[in-house]
Amino acid sequence: METLGYIAGILTTIAFVPQVLQIYKTKSAKDVSLAMFLIFTTGVVMWLIYGIKVNAFPVIAANGVTLILALVILFLKFKYKNHSLK
Amino acid sequence: METLGYIAGILTTIAFVPQVLQIYKTKSAKDVSLAMFLIFTTGVVMWLIYGIKVNAFPVIAANGVTLILALVILFLKFKYKNHSLK
Repeated sequence: METLGYIAGILTTIAFVPQVLQIYKTKSAKDVSLAMFLIFTTGVVMWLIYGIKVNAFPVIAANGVTLILALVILFLKFKYKNHSLK
Repeated sequence: METLGYIAGILTTIAFVPQVLQIYKTKSAKDVSLAMFLIFTTGVVMWLIYGIKVNAFPVIAANGVTLILALVILFLKFKYKNHSLK
């Protein structure tokens, strides 16, 4: 059963990789919601703190990687802001 | 400490609401990665099964809501496919 949790965690973490790649390749992120990634990143930081406090390595690992990917998406969102139509 | 986990879960869940609203309003989702939401939705389904199997209500609740929001984003992504430029 733990394995299922690990696979689930890996999937919901690596899911952000294709989003990073797509923004990087198209240099466009206007349809990607800034509010979504601001709220999501805040939540992930809180998951990370929670994981550290309760000493849960899978929570720390999954959210550590997700945090990096979400921050890259936010960075690209700002970087390509002027490329967007709105 | 549990409270921190609940707030984190609420944030990483409701984060998808502004993305749903933005796609609905702009009728455009071309920058939103299809691969991201396909992998993410698969992961969320696995979290949901995991939550049911280990009888963890917060995991079931958070991932149940996230699943609905992710499915709505996928639906809108397909619906507005022809509106996109690429």
